[in-house]
Amino acid sequence: MNGAETVADLGEFPLIERLQRRLPEEVRTRPNLDIGIGDDCAVWRPTPGKRSVISTDTMVEEIDFRFEWTDWPSLGWKALAINLSDMAAMGARPVLATITLGLRPDDLVSDLEAMYDGVAELAAATDVVVAGGDIQRTGGPFFISITVVGEATDVLRRTGAQSGDAVVVTGFLGASGAGLELLRAHDERVGATTADAVIAAHMRPIPRLAAGDALCDCGASAGMDISDGLLGDAQKIATASGVAITIDADRVPVSPAVHALFPDAWLDLALRAGEDYELVATIDPERIGELQRLGGEIGTTFTHIGSVHAAGDGGPRVSVVGMEGQSMTLGRGAYEHFPTPK
Amino acid sequence: MNGAETVADLGEFPLIERLQRRLPEEVRTRPNLDIGIGDDCAVWRPTPGKRSVISTDTMVEEIDFRFEWTDWPSLGWKALAINLSDMAAMGARPVLATITLGLRPDDLVSDLEAMYDGVAELAAATDVVVAGGDIQRTGGPFFISITVVGEATDVLRRTGAQSGDAVVVTGFLGASGAGLELLRAHDERVGATTADAVIAAHMRPIPRLAAGDALCDCGASAGMDISDGLLGDAQKIATASGVAITIDADRVPVSPAVHALFPDAWLDLALRAGEDYELVATIDPERIGELQRLGGEIGTTFTHIGSVHAAGDGGPRVSVVGMEGQSMTLGRGAYEHFPTPK
Repeated sequence: MNGAETVADLGEFPLIERLQRRLPEEVRTRPNLDIGIGDDCAVWRPTPGKRSVISTDTMVEEIDFRFEWTDWPSLGWKALAINLSDMAAMGARPVLATITLGLRPDDLVSDLEAMYDGVAELAAATDVVVAGGDIQRTGGPFFISITVVGEATDVLRRTGAQSGDAVVVTGFLGASGAGLELLRAHDERVGATTADAVIAAHMRPIPRLAAGDALCDCGASAGMDISDGLLGDAQKIATASGVAITIDADRVPVSPAVHALFPDAWLDLALRAGEDYELVATIDPERIGELQRLGGEIGTTFTHIGSVHAAGDGGPRVSVVGMEGQSMTLGRGAYEHFPTPK
Repeated sequence: MNGAETVADLGEFPLIERLQRRLPEEVRTRPNLDIGIGDDCAVWRPTPGKRSVISTDTMVEEIDFRFEWTDWPSLGWKALAINLSDMAAMGARPVLATITLGLRPDDLVSDLEAMYDGVAELAAATDVVVAGGDIQRTGGPFFISITVVGEATDVLRRTGAQSGDAVVVTGFLGASGAGLELLRAHDERVGATTADAVIAAHMRPIPRLAAGDALCDCGASAGMDISDGLLGDAQKIATASGVAITIDADRVPVSPAVHALFPDAWLDLALRAGEDYELVATIDPERIGELQRLGGEIGTTFTHIGSVHAAGDGGPRVSVVGMEGQSMTLGRGAYEHFPTPK
């Protein structure tokens, strides 16, 4: 049975113990966590004077990932990363995570342990403890649902963008979408160095926690993470803030690997493909210099890609300029699990 | 399309708006909630000096419930109730909930709205706000996963039971299990008053929040909620605390309706069937009088059903006495999604 032990072979409570053992001490305990895994609830002492922040995100097999091209440690990493990215989007710092698994009887214990290794790797790097969770049986696709609690002094909302603000993004866009395209197409370039860089961006996104802090420190007026594509997510800021946003396509930072791999589709990937988990924010243009200096200290680029205007007759909307003088206006552009019918 | 609008007809973002509108103001806002539904995260201000408490629980179609016999408002109620019961089990008071839904394109919007009505009904009764969540597509069974955050000064753990303590339970046991048996068997008594009482206990359990507070106030040494059956859950306290527990079957409070409906199986239902969501706790026997007086004020009975002893050669275990002089020793008895193989 070694090497192929299933969830049904082991049983629920021994499985919880095995998965817990996969987490190093630093990822299970911290001074302000009074009760972690193993009781009805986890209990911690919030930092006096800080606000608490909560976010939850779920990945379902076949919809959000495929085992055909995802390794288990990367799945664990990403399930945590997409939640930590929501923390970064608010300028918050994560404290703890709870993990719910939807399992089938024939899922392999060794696979789940490998997934926990990926969770532990990112948790250790971001000072997060796994404080509890729930193991659930399902007759359908595997799912992993993570909830993260964090803390913040000031938070970055979607509602504060004002006419005259600049629009900035962190890092480079399009790599995650390019990686997904290569995987989907079983592209022959998978395995080459350039391709592997964009696939890594898709499989193991890095939550921009320090960048979220820097945006708060520089008084950013609104911000969020780019999970559903730049244009769609900018539209959410425009709608929440009641403003119009113009994005200059020439200034959008695109990963060099995306240019090289997709000479015809790189701009579409950068503007519309999601899951880059970079941050998009609005800020007083006079503070961009300060923001970029902070970016230098934390190793994250901030690029000025557009501007905020009063919403005119067209209402809150996102326009793209700079594509050889063309201008195109986009309405809803975000990835939706159930697209809004036209 | 009226009356049969599907999730795919409406789209993800309009669906979020529709479900949010189903929650009355009191269930969406509270003074210490800075950001609720609609941003990357929910943000609140913890009460100074209190600990924070988190719990998460998921219900999957066909495993945890069947649409054949569950109405949608009851499903929403129960998905929240099982999380609030974990708060009660710690002596904590809930503050907010986040809700994750796993949906298929052809799920009906009106069903989900009805489910939210059930969530709202219990949330309003327990002073909980719905602060956010996540809508997820799935190709498999419907699921609803709720995370609740609460606060407490002292918390009731599983680890503190001591030799000489008394064992107490709240309310009456067996009703939920009896209700499930009737539903499973398509019993002809479904629809009769007595049957409906036990079915209601199964479909709409009431989290014992005030009872959890009372146990903390009276210095209970350990406690938890009965989700997997009295014997199995008492075993968890015995194991966590390193003690032996004896339960006197004659003293276990059984719902009169369970006696009437299951004259041969009532004791088994009370001892082994789960989902009653009553509390079982250990406490200094000299404080039982004080606890029962508090119970009178909050309308919850506390019954003294057993005692805690040093774990002998048999290790931490639960024994049942009082069944006509018989004594049976039970090992693991809790409901497990994946039973531990013998």
